[in-house]
Amino acid sequence: MSSTGDRVRAAVVSVGSELLLGDLTDTNATWLSRRLTEHGVEVVHHLAVGDDVDRLGASVRWLAAEVELIVVGGGLGPTADDVTREALAAAAGRELVHDPHLEEDLVRRFAAMDRRMAPQNLRQAWIPAGARAIPAVGTAPGFHLELPGDPTTHVVAVPGVPWELREQFEAAVVPLLTELTGGGVTLTRVLHVAGRGESDVAEIVEPLVDGSDGTVLSFLARSHEIQVRLTVTAADRAAVLARSEPLVQRVTAALGGSVVGVDDEDLETVVLRLLRERGRTLATAESATAGDIAARLGRVPGASAALLGGAVVYTARAKQEVLGLPASLLSEHGTVSEATTRALALAVRQRFGSDHALAVTGVAGPTAVDGLPVGTAFWALAHPDGEVEVHGRRIPGDRGQVIARLGSAALDLLRLRLAGV
Amino acid sequence: MSSTGDRVRAAVVSVGSELLLGDLTDTNATWLSRRLTEHGVEVVHHLAVGDDVDRLGASVRWLAAEVELIVVGGGLGPTADDVTREALAAAAGRELVHDPHLEEDLVRRFAAMDRRMAPQNLRQAWIPAGARAIPAVGTAPGFHLELPGDPTTHVVAVPGVPWELREQFEAAVVPLLTELTGGGVTLTRVLHVAGRGESDVAEIVEPLVDGSDGTVLSFLARSHEIQVRLTVTAADRAAVLARSEPLVQRVTAALGGSVVGVDDEDLETVVLRLLRERGRTLATAESATAGDIAARLGRVPGASAALLGGAVVYTARAKQEVLGLPASLLSEHGTVSEATTRALALAVRQRFGSDHALAVTGVAGPTAVDGLPVGTAFWALAHPDGEVEVHGRRIPGDRGQVIARLGSAALDLLRLRLAGV
Repeated sequence: MSSTGDRVRAAVVSVGSELLLGDLTDTNATWLSRRLTEHGVEVVHHLAVGDDVDRLGASVRWLAAEVELIVVGGGLGPTADDVTREALAAAAGRELVHDPHLEEDLVRRFAAMDRRMAPQNLRQAWIPAGARAIPAVGTAPGFHLELPGDPTTHVVAVPGVPWELREQFEAAVVPLLTELTGGGVTLTRVLHVAGRGESDVAEIVEPLVDGSDGTVLSFLARSHEIQVRLTVTAADRAAVLARSEPLVQRVTAALGGSVVGVDDEDLETVVLRLLRERGRTLATAESATAGDIAARLGRVPGASAALLGGAVVYTARAKQEVLGLPASLLSEHGTVSEATTRALALAVRQRFGSDHALAVTGVAGPTAVDGLPVGTAFWALAHPDGEVEVHGRRIPGDRGQVIARLGSAALDLLRLRLAGV
Repeated sequence: MSSTGDRVRAAVVSVGSELLLGDLTDTNATWLSRRLTEHGVEVVHHLAVGDDVDRLGASVRWLAAEVELIVVGGGLGPTADDVTREALAAAAGRELVHDPHLEEDLVRRFAAMDRRMAPQNLRQAWIPAGARAIPAVGTAPGFHLELPGDPTTHVVAVPGVPWELREQFEAAVVPLLTELTGGGVTLTRVLHVAGRGESDVAEIVEPLVDGSDGTVLSFLARSHEIQVRLTVTAADRAAVLARSEPLVQRVTAALGGSVVGVDDEDLETVVLRLLRERGRTLATAESATAGDIAARLGRVPGASAALLGGAVVYTARAKQEVLGLPASLLSEHGTVSEATTRALALAVRQRFGSDHALAVTGVAGPTAVDGLPVGTAFWALAHPDGEVEVHGRRIPGDRGQVIARLGSAALDLLRLRLAGV
């Protein structure tokens, strides 16, 4: 995407030595960039800097020559390490002043938590002269400061703790964005596509998207999905959704059953929704994935409405003793085989009394098993009528990727059958 | 950590619009920072910038006034979007020149992959005049350029694809670091601590660390552990390990059983190692965690030597029908209770014929269950002699955090008993 001359430009500054030591990855910059982009702002820089008054001050002055908005995250805590207040005051050529309202608020917050407030917490009641305070949601207030110049640059400082940064951004920065940009919301609709390659998806989708209304199409290949991304700008969120929905429908129809879900609807959420809508229940029998399929479903709120449970049968003995598979079946076909996976699905469906059952076996690695190479995998789905379908293929990747992709293959099979596409 | 005047200073520049749109998090900067820090270099900035010749050129000139080394990742591909070559040539006031060796190498690489080389790939054979080429490991060559000035700044450009960036860094940047720093390796030893608060850990550890030999102590609080970090510099990796080991031992002894592992040894790895060392096997009975405990263990290579499997008993019916708990027990005590958790541990141990068993029940949220608030949790450990111990408390956090922390509490109980501390 290229810049358009009249968009508000912004920079994100993250303060903290742990970023520069490589101890922590800067996910705040990712989150802030997405939110700023959604509001039509063009983010032109991320900058990470340590807890250093001079470097932070110089960085902000350099960025201020280029952008209308700088969001600074971090360095607002109570200790001597936390120098964002001093650095931004120096960058603006101002003094720090004491804000009695902030002090009262801090005292009240500590009292409410029944915690003693250390004297050094009072440092947090000082902000640059002329700045507007942004009330704390944890224990660190932020502030909003204007640096005169061409352009005038708004500098907003918020704490680096992710949930505090997010809440204070929504409360104090979003209203400022509406003021600076004159409103307008840019959203990216995301279609999650399974079971197709990127070039295949692009060939189908590109002819459907006419960019003349400003809609931007892009593709993102992830480990077990392709994302089709449609970026649309309109007056507000509702208008973006109204304008993008027909296109989302058109692309979904063209891709047939390959679209797993839209926006926040991931595979697990969709599978559980479909099970609930059809009044069906599920149990799992997992060998190579060791419980990961059930755990992925269990992380979705309300999973217990459809997920009865499952058996992790990691050894041959467990397959026999816990799910009753005959030793002869295992010795004849091997534990990683179509026949064993089919038998596991049937057995766990019966044991849990569920409508459906998923079963998986495979060689997750790092070494081959019984002459089968790493990535050999089978997944089976048992239906309410007792029919079982089994699929198998060689899954690429390391141990973690084989486990994740095998689970997704099984869940996507269930999704396709429940959706009837 | 503060800067020491004589360390080589570096900046990491990441090129790519997807970072500024918030579509991608900059993990390259994290990786490069850790490697640079290990070699004694002080990283003072990360900067992300879009595919923009002027902005990238201006950024590099600004950083060059401050640092002796700039590592630029990304923007070296074959398309018109990829402008790192042009931007760095402009920043150095040089022309791009054609390197016939690079062209030959590109032609050879495409032929070896049996792929047609598009004419635009030839753009990748041009580098700034005076730069030294860094051979491709994928299809993108990099280069090393010196910008005269005070200080002289070495600019190294490598592709943004993580594995290419890493391989080209090791091949071309590490030798340069040895030259710039005169050798010396800085490593951070990490002790993973469970079951204690940060201030409690600091009070015990701080008196043990005498910083006069240059050892730097820091603490990092993560969701379910505290990290004690000891940063040590010496001539090489072996010397760092030799010098830090007595201190690691002293801190471990002082913290008693709270140290889960050192460096890359996480809780799952340690539990499996201890089980194997003692020749013991494990089965799990999981309600609230829905298989997550077994899946965490299953991600460790070689888990099948100790993990037999487990039962995910998500509903009351599954607890009765699959593990044979009496309906009266469940109705009298409730599914989330000390008595039920104890019974689950005993039943799953018997069902799998394992030495140990872990069982968990809890309210993961988002809503209360049977009048029990979100976070109510019990975990039980069955021993080889049939004895069971049960623990319970209210775990803070959202659904995902409760699931993760409850699993960790159970695994840590097993670790402590196996370690006999």
